[in-house]
Amino acid sequence: MTQSVAFIGLGAMGYRMAAHLPKYFEKVYVWNRNFDKAKQHATEYGTLAVELTEAVQADVIFSCLPTSDDVETLIDNVNIKSGAIWIDCTSGVPEAARRLAERLKTQNIDFLDAPVSGQTIGAENATLTVMVGGDVNAFECAYPAMAAIGKLIQHVGDSGAGFAVKAINNMLLAVNLWSVAEGFSTLKAHGVNLDAALNCINASSGKSMVTETIFPQRVLSREFPVTFALPLLAKDTGIALDLVHEAKLPAPILALTQSLIQAANLTAEPNSDFSSAVKMYEAWTKIILK
Amino acid sequence: MTQSVAFIGLGAMGYRMAAHLPKYFEKVYVWNRNFDKAKQHATEYGTLAVELTEAVQADVIFSCLPTSDDVETLIDNVNIKSGAIWIDCTSGVPEAARRLAERLKTQNIDFLDAPVSGQTIGAENATLTVMVGGDVNAFECAYPAMAAIGKLIQHVGDSGAGFAVKAINNMLLAVNLWSVAEGFSTLKAHGVNLDAALNCINASSGKSMVTETIFPQRVLSREFPVTFALPLLAKDTGIALDLVHEAKLPAPILALTQSLIQAANLTAEPNSDFSSAVKMYEAWTKIILK
Amino acid sequence: MTQSVAFIGLGAMGYRMAAHLPKYFEKVYVWNRNFDKAKQHATEYGTLAVELTEAVQADVIFSCLPTSDDVETLIDNVNIKSGAIWIDCTSGVPEAARRLAERLKTQNIDFLDAPVSGQTIGAENATLTVMVGGDVNAFECAYPAMAAIGKLIQHVGDSGAGFAVKAINNMLLAVNLWSVAEGFSTLKAHGVNLDAALNCINASSGKSMVTETIFPQRVLSREFPVTFALPLLAKDTGIALDLVHEAKLPAPILALTQSLIQAANLTAEPNSDFSSAVKMYEAWTKIILK
Amino acid sequence: MTQSVAFIGLGAMGYRMAAHLPKYFEKVYVWNRNFDKAKQHATEYGTLAVELTEAVQADVIFSCLPTSDDVETLIDNVNIKSGAIWIDCTSGVPEAARRLAERLKTQNIDFLDAPVSGQTIGAENATLTVMVGGDVNAFECAYPAMAAIGKLIQHVGDSGAGFAVKAINNMLLAVNLWSVAEGFSTLKAHGVNLDAALNCINASSGKSMVTETIFPQRVLSREFPVTFALPLLAKDTGIALDLVHEAKLPAPILALTQSLIQAANLTAEPNSDFSSAVKMYEAWTKIILK
Repeated sequence: MTQSVAFIGLGAMGYRMAAHLPKYFEKVYVWNRNFDKAKQHATEYGTLAVELTEAVQADVIFSCLPTSDDVETLIDNVNIKSGAIWIDCTSGVPEAARRLAERLKTQNIDFLDAPVSGQTIGAENATLTVMVGGDVNAFECAYPAMAAIGKLIQHVGDSGAGFAVKAINNMLLAVNLWSVAEGFSTLKAHGVNLDAALNCINASSGKSMVTETIFPQRVLSREFPVTFALPLLAKDTGIALDLVHEAKLPAPILALTQSLIQAANLTAEPNSDFSSAVKMYEAWTKIILK
Repeated sequence: MTQSVAFIGLGAMGYRMAAHLPKYFEKVYVWNRNFDKAKQHATEYGTLAVELTEAVQADVIFSCLPTSDDVETLIDNVNIKSGAIWIDCTSGVPEAARRLAERLKTQNIDFLDAPVSGQTIGAENATLTVMVGGDVNAFECAYPAMAAIGKLIQHVGDSGAGFAVKAINNMLLAVNLWSVAEGFSTLKAHGVNLDAALNCINASSGKSMVTETIFPQRVLSREFPVTFALPLLAKDTGIALDLVHEAKLPAPILALTQSLIQAANLTAEPNSDFSSAVKMYEAWTKIILK
Repeated sequence: MTQSVAFIGLGAMGYRMAAHLPKYFEKVYVWNRNFDKAKQHATEYGTLAVELTEAVQADVIFSCLPTSDDVETLIDNVNIKSGAIWIDCTSGVPEAARRLAERLKTQNIDFLDAPVSGQTIGAENATLTVMVGGDVNAFECAYPAMAAIGKLIQHVGDSGAGFAVKAINNMLLAVNLWSVAEGFSTLKAHGVNLDAALNCINASSGKSMVTETIFPQRVLSREFPVTFALPLLAKDTGIALDLVHEAKLPAPILALTQSLIQAANLTAEPNSDFSSAVKMYEAWTKIILK
Repeated sequence: MTQSVAFIGLGAMGYRMAAHLPKYFEKVYVWNRNFDKAKQHATEYGTLAVELTEAVQADVIFSCLPTSDDVETLIDNVNIKSGAIWIDCTSGVPEAARRLAERLKTQNIDFLDAPVSGQTIGAENATLTVMVGGDVNAFECAYPAMAAIGKLIQHVGDSGAGFAVKAINNMLLAVNLWSVAEGFSTLKAHGVNLDAALNCINASSGKSMVTETIFPQRVLSREFPVTFALPLLAKDTGIALDLVHEAKLPAPILALTQSLIQAANLTAEPNSDFSSAVKMYEAWTKIILK
């Protein structure tokens, strides 16, 4: 396609996501704070490692950074091409999306909040889910670029809606992770075979992504591979609870889960996977989930 | 097969389960408190409607009653054939299973707690999941009879383990139902399109049986079809919490969920489906989940 | 004393608080949005009903308004005398106190957040507790004015600290109110005499202001007199939880209580006393606390 | 008085309680598993150290043991004098009280559940609160004996009611302990002076026995003196929650508190005071409450 595309932020996710763009777009600019990574990406995938000032002259600009604050700081310091569409794949804050969308609108730039789910394996296989908030026309215009990196590209509402859906998704992940730990510890205390119990539940109404893959592969295996850091899950549950409070809603289970994940994060070893949250619960019960 | 089989309790589940047995067994006795149902089953499926005293002379005896109390009362009042295997498909109490197994053992009878999941549709199609606690030899001996009604027949541990897994499964169902209601109310308050959000979550880590089928088919559809009554879910979460207490474990999310389901049950209209539990939450927030 | 004093906001609390000032100060200005109330106050207590522009020329200025937003809007629209001390008795937001204190500092004005507790009876008898955040010198300088309306005048920390203590106090009130309702419903369900139980607890370690006065006088009496509105308690628990989140702390009990109070507020009849929060719990249990 | 009185169980509480009886009764028998303690008590207070078989021939028999199980085992193995009144001061299980009362009634013996509060200092000064369940006539008949050890002797209902009130009292204590820890950690994180905050709250609606004495004397002082062991508080909150479940009531705050206290107990050092429960919370937040 003739659109020029840029990708800013080549972390574990971004590096893999940007790798798919040259298949569909002629000009793909990449930039990263540690610029060596950008040069390596160019060598490996035929992208163009350029200065940030040049990258933001593309028609479609992806960003994938740790937090919304990082994105706002970066946008504050560049002159983006008028008419561009900025696609922010960060797991960010809905309020920041609304603020940025409004501000960039005055410069004739569209901002889409477009967080992804599917982890590094989904980024590698271009099978990510992209949940998008913002202007529908911009969404349609940027659709081909997002389709290059994901499988389900879903518009979910106005600015901020993409970030909101991601935050609630991760909150539900947290609820499941913690409650499955409680439930399986109870079963183990009663002498039940956990693998057999998992088989049953995965064929029943209590099934979740946690029981199907996360719990067996990360917890019962005792591997806790660090692919999604616990502080990021803590951040996301915090974003979800801020949404609850802004709406002045009661949400007892979400509120309690956020407290527990926050406590687990505060007591975890550095560089822990989100699944390590169960270790705080294991420290309470002295029951190891294996 | 040459084993004789009996099925006691022809409710919405039992009636459909017993219908598969004549395909594999020559002699299938059925009994039901309202005996007309037994006669109707005999006419419809070629089973034999017999007195309870005769039914309990079968080699393998299924029971499927509302509660463990019902099963205990029934067993107290009959003389079961020595050498028989009793398969209790009730969603019962682990402690009752242990008590019955121990008592029947002295009469040379095996008791398996074998609750099922998969609802009436699974009973109709013989695709139920059967989670079985009790003696392994009895399990193997009764396997063909259970295989006639289910797809996954899983031994999960000693007496009571089957009931325990079922209770925890239903507790996780309750956790998901309530937390998805909280999460989606929050999204709706922020103007997010719920169907689009559901699409995303069902392709992401927050996915569960609740987000995949229960929430869209029962809640968002506003149908709340009564296939699994709310008082039964309240009973099951109570059984799960009793397991937690017997093991003297902390379980904050399960405990809170049990309180909320109990409150929802106490305030629900008579004859409500379990999914109606969300209506109490909707009454708090004034946000209708549709 | 020779300081001139003003009181802005003559609601149920402010009207009674301002009544004590003429005993100690020669010039006491009063102002109220509905100005008739100011004139009535002047007639009744010998204060001076003046325009707002004149009131803010006093040496010490009290404000007692519904929310911090009201105070900020008011301050935005007046020219306060340089060198004045502003004492805000609103149950307000710590962040607003920090913002106002910083801004007014540049105009050589001190801002103290000084919420009070003790209800209308305490205001009438000048026995309020005043919890004060802000500059210590300003606190000492304004001490005589505060001592005119209260019994315990306590400096608790920097700007915002007063509001923070008030919010946590009211959160603890909410925790007690709700948990006493749970506990006493349980006792009633078991046939215990509630008045006798209250006697025992009030002589034991479970005692609180709720068991000593609030529960017997407002709930068990079924009077629920509207002296502190439920929406204000909901607001205060919200402020407390915002403090928890700003500090990124887990706080499971406070978070759950805030959800429950929020739900109670959303479902309460208009113009309900805070103690009416228990009515939501009674609606769950069908047990009336009397 | 002419009644003969016995006291069984001379622990930290019982030893001090029994010391008051000789002031009012001529014959006071004492017995303790470690019999040296009984002999020491006799020497010190003029009681009579006797065999258990003789002690249970008294007109009024007190017991003060760790658990209801201990009391039941003891009663199973002795022949109590017909016409006696048994006063069980253990913090026991309501269901056990109902069972024992019913069984002893057939032997013409009255059983009163009569747990006490006030700690060792109250036992020493005979200022305990005694909350009594059981037959009213027996209560009146045994009143003088109970009045010897306590200040408020309160009949609260039928058998089990005394234990129920004690359990709910201690649950409310636990709720306050934990929520004050959450609230004060939040205040400390925001730089508030905790002693000043405590002053304010103790003059306000958030006041409780915890804020007035327990928190300053045990937690803020960092003394955690072991006068009431954490496992006993965990036991009592468990009894309270069993009451909730028997009544099939929702009780979110009590349920969550029980989980937290249970977790704190499981992770505490051996021989910890109940107030040490806050140490688990401090381990989460890294904020020391002092």
